[in-house]
Amino acid sequence: MNDMIHTLLAHRSIRKFTDDPIPDDHIEVATRAGQMASTSSAVQAYCAIRVTNPDSRRVIADLAGPQQKVADAPAFFVICGDARRHRLLCECAGQKYRQQLEGFLISVIDATLFAQNMVIAFESLGYGICYIGGIRNDLARVAEVLRLPIGVYPIFGLCVGKPAESPDERPRLPTPGVLFEDTYPTDEEVFAQIDAYDAAYAAYLAKRGASATGWSRAMVKKMDHASRLTLGPFYREQGADLD
Amino acid sequence: MNDMIHTLLAHRSIRKFTDDPIPDDHIEVATRAGQMASTSSAVQAYCAIRVTNPDSRRVIADLAGPQQKVADAPAFFVICGDARRHRLLCECAGQKYRQQLEGFLISVIDATLFAQNMVIAFESLGYGICYIGGIRNDLARVAEVLRLPIGVYPIFGLCVGKPAESPDERPRLPTPGVLFEDTYPTDEEVFAQIDAYDAAYAAYLAKRGASATGWSRAMVKKMDHASRLTLGPFYREQGADLD
Repeated sequence: MNDMIHTLLAHRSIRKFTDDPIPDDHIEVATRAGQMASTSSAVQAYCAIRVTNPDSRRVIADLAGPQQKVADAPAFFVICGDARRHRLLCECAGQKYRQQLEGFLISVIDATLFAQNMVIAFESLGYGICYIGGIRNDLARVAEVLRLPIGVYPIFGLCVGKPAESPDERPRLPTPGVLFEDTYPTDEEVFAQIDAYDAAYAAYLAKRGASATGWSRAMVKKMDHASRLTLGPFYREQGADLD
Repeated sequence: MNDMIHTLLAHRSIRKFTDDPIPDDHIEVATRAGQMASTSSAVQAYCAIRVTNPDSRRVIADLAGPQQKVADAPAFFVICGDARRHRLLCECAGQKYRQQLEGFLISVIDATLFAQNMVIAFESLGYGICYIGGIRNDLARVAEVLRLPIGVYPIFGLCVGKPAESPDERPRLPTPGVLFEDTYPTDEEVFAQIDAYDAAYAAYLAKRGASATGWSRAMVKKMDHASRLTLGPFYREQGADLD
């Protein structure tokens, strides 16, 4: 176990921040660390938009929940898959940009690799972070506020700041429940891992004063109904081809 | 600049490995570090399948290129988005799993966050890695070899081992070309960043003895035609709803 692995294992999402500002050189070096993540054939299909305008922050905080931390965090980024550069270059060359689902998928993967390296760099500097999937409640509004042109696909938000809380570790599935050898396990094996996990998860929730439901019930409650049905139409309007 | 950021900035994809095996406890701790990455509402929509069977490795190495490193690397994983657990739990509860594009997107994001933390843990232990997008050439065959049931979406492969090469840094876009404030830049501003980058990229290629084309031309060549058209139909057959 080295310091780096210790830092990775110590990750907690932070939802309350102090008012301490983040120096520009920290943002610069974290972004640079993000850029050094792997990228498919050097396409670098991502960008980060740092939102400093308080009105824009307020709009995004409201549509994402509301989530006050989006308005208040010392730094807030919208991380985007970005095929804009590639589209412009193809146009200039008199060609049509023809990436279908592969192009969209690469932009999501590249942007996520980039963001996670940024996150680790920020955490190594003593900051805490929280990803904000809630921006996907209304991406059309996000795109309007940030003036995102065709080819730019906002994926998630990212709050960063000095932690003003110290939350407990949220337990994860047992490692043998996510790491398999050669073939995918049987349903019975899958359920055995989930059963072991449900008790640990319920204990965690009870300690936080939440109703002590297991992970299984929380997942069913979350996934037995459709959500964010505007996503597909939005990404298609932004130029993604999901076929 | 701390050691962690130094490690992130020092990343190079490694395509040649020594024969040194990777101890199981290193794989275990890297996977655990992967699991501690953020996950949307604790869904943990991912798994890693470590491929040790030489016949399976050979099949995947061939369809991915061929890429001999996939057959030879001391460890090779197929990283998957995984909605299998959630589907089984919904079924058990007499509910239908109803996540559409949001569910697929979360599985891609979660799996990528997980993988990148694994990668950083491996690199901190002195290993080198290479992501393998080439498995997406024929995911139906990958799913057959690994016996992936409905709800499991292979996304990329990952080779890991002790580096047997020390490649130069592949230059990235200038940081102001990927980090914006409040709004997306104009096309002119985008092109100014690309122009600066093209020269650096051509110099890098020339040093490697490749034909010294710039990044712009490489991108157009890659993106002016459709690729991997089986992706959408494959993921839909695996149960993903991309609408």
